[in-house]
Amino acid sequence: MRKKTTLLAAGLVLGLWAGQVWSASQEPIQPVEPAVIKEPAKVELGKKLFFDPRLSRSGAISCNSCHNLAMGGSDNLKASIGHKWQQGGINSPTVLNSSLNIAQFWDGRAKDLREQAGGPIENPMEMASTHELAVQVLNSIPGYRAEFKQVFGKDKITIDEVTSALAAFEETLVTPNSRFDQWLKGDKNALTVRELAGYELFKNSGCVACHNGVAVGGNSFQKMGLVTPYVTENKAEGRAAVTGKDADRFNFKVPTLRNVALTYPYFHDGEAATLTQAVDVMGRLQLGRTFTAEENGQIVAFLKTLTGDQPVIQYPFLPPSEDDTPRPEPFVK
Amino acid sequence: MRKKTTLLAAGLVLGLWAGQVWSASQEPIQPVEPAVIKEPAKVELGKKLFFDPRLSRSGAISCNSCHNLAMGGSDNLKASIGHKWQQGGINSPTVLNSSLNIAQFWDGRAKDLREQAGGPIENPMEMASTHELAVQVLNSIPGYRAEFKQVFGKDKITIDEVTSALAAFEETLVTPNSRFDQWLKGDKNALTVRELAGYELFKNSGCVACHNGVAVGGNSFQKMGLVTPYVTENKAEGRAAVTGKDADRFNFKVPTLRNVALTYPYFHDGEAATLTQAVDVMGRLQLGRTFTAEENGQIVAFLKTLTGDQPVIQYPFLPPSEDDTPRPEPFVK
Repeated sequence: MRKKTTLLAAGLVLGLWAGQVWSASQEPIQPVEPAVIKEPAKVELGKKLFFDPRLSRSGAISCNSCHNLAMGGSDNLKASIGHKWQQGGINSPTVLNSSLNIAQFWDGRAKDLREQAGGPIENPMEMASTHELAVQVLNSIPGYRAEFKQVFGKDKITIDEVTSALAAFEETLVTPNSRFDQWLKGDKNALTVRELAGYELFKNSGCVACHNGVAVGGNSFQKMGLVTPYVTENKAEGRAAVTGKDADRFNFKVPTLRNVALTYPYFHDGEAATLTQAVDVMGRLQLGRTFTAEENGQIVAFLKTLTGDQPVIQYPFLPPSEDDTPRPEPFVK
Repeated sequence: MRKKTTLLAAGLVLGLWAGQVWSASQEPIQPVEPAVIKEPAKVELGKKLFFDPRLSRSGAISCNSCHNLAMGGSDNLKASIGHKWQQGGINSPTVLNSSLNIAQFWDGRAKDLREQAGGPIENPMEMASTHELAVQVLNSIPGYRAEFKQVFGKDKITIDEVTSALAAFEETLVTPNSRFDQWLKGDKNALTVRELAGYELFKNSGCVACHNGVAVGGNSFQKMGLVTPYVTENKAEGRAAVTGKDADRFNFKVPTLRNVALTYPYFHDGEAATLTQAVDVMGRLQLGRTFTAEENGQIVAFLKTLTGDQPVIQYPFLPPSEDDTPRPEPFVK
């Protein structure tokens, strides 16, 4: 009797285990895991820099201006607002889960978050500073000098430490525990029948061919307008700007669909205002398929289950400037 | 013997008590007390609104843009950046301890924080929205509708609830426990000899005539350029714009000196970049006294002891817009 129970129990455990292996290995999307913070002081410093508008020439634009952590790590604008209200050339991608991307920017021109972080600071359309000026500002601030010293053990701040700290903070900006991930991890009640139907359609109709992996995208470059050309006034040429190859024209990094309900509007030009529009255009242009309103609604319902726990951020207190800190110049011609 | 000890103890207690009464009643500045939060849900809602750029027409400017809680509740710019990068007409005052002000804005045209909060939303130079549009945006967002309903018990959001929630949040933005307040409360080691000398000079030379009370200012209107006229290109006329009286020209609300080390640059036109400059100009123009470098340094040292504990803010997660939420229009002509 005792032996039988043990065998039964072993069988159950094996069955459950096999079931888990099945679900984990069969699904083309994997759950987001919580961030493991190894260097808290570096992350904290990176957070300050992320929120510090003094990295911009105007003293008014921070990383968080266009990657607002209160709004899904994006600015919810078609095009971002840069120095002197210049209109940005491309929709600002979310910083959430960006560490999972194959490369950074829509055209992947930065290989990682560190390389990315230096870009907007010196982009004349964006923060419009220079690495030299940004570093001079930071070096003039005693609070920053002390904190960089503590984290990097060096007396002088350079742009390498700045981007390294920013990247360390950004790596913590993952969003685990979405309802979809709860379902992936075995809670079969986490999704409704309609949301599951949307997921099945997402897989069967081919969306998942590009939107897969942990980030549900972000791991490949694909042509925008694969079946039918995409018509836009936006001038971005995508990957071709990096590789110089004509074949890479309009190849863009596939955006993550994690938290996609928060990161409207959609596409590199921000021209799709709603998820309904985005799913419709993707179906027709990328898959050659026109989803019915019901199908579209099911997919949108599924996409909304990808909103994860947003990072918990204590708003930083930025170390004040000193008398000799270079002053911001928002209105200088 | 026992009686004698009791009497001695009583005498000591009485002496200490009298000492405390003396210090509290004799000093012209009183300590900032911590905020008592009576309606946490209202405060939390107000915090979201304070950080929400959707109250602006561009979708990019929030209350926090010009009253940044990471930077002493100010933007540290001479003039703020408004809609389409318009240059603001006056230096943005700190939101910290603003509930202690006699009235709001430099000219006191709003009687309290509620009345103030509606101003920038519809100011075409600032957030450039209208109360109607801002309220329409909020009413379209299910997350906000639910939260307003919970706090105010009404199904429809109006501008009154918006400004009421914003004011409730702002009332919590006090900064107790500065070193100066520790000293006021009896910790005689909280200040250095130099800082105390600065405080004595601050009192004896007359600064304290206007900068007194809990906020070390904020409780009266005074003429800028009392002894010697203040020369500026700034067009603000101060209190006269509210009262219509010629006698009120260049009468401005005396700014609080709480956290003054964080709220550079100084004066209504932001023309004093440093505390050293500000103290020098104030001495000459308001008191007819030229402080020596040593005196100036002492007063600046004292002013730096007025930095209190900054509000601890968990950065909010803003409820996302819906498909029918009016979209921001940053680049529309």
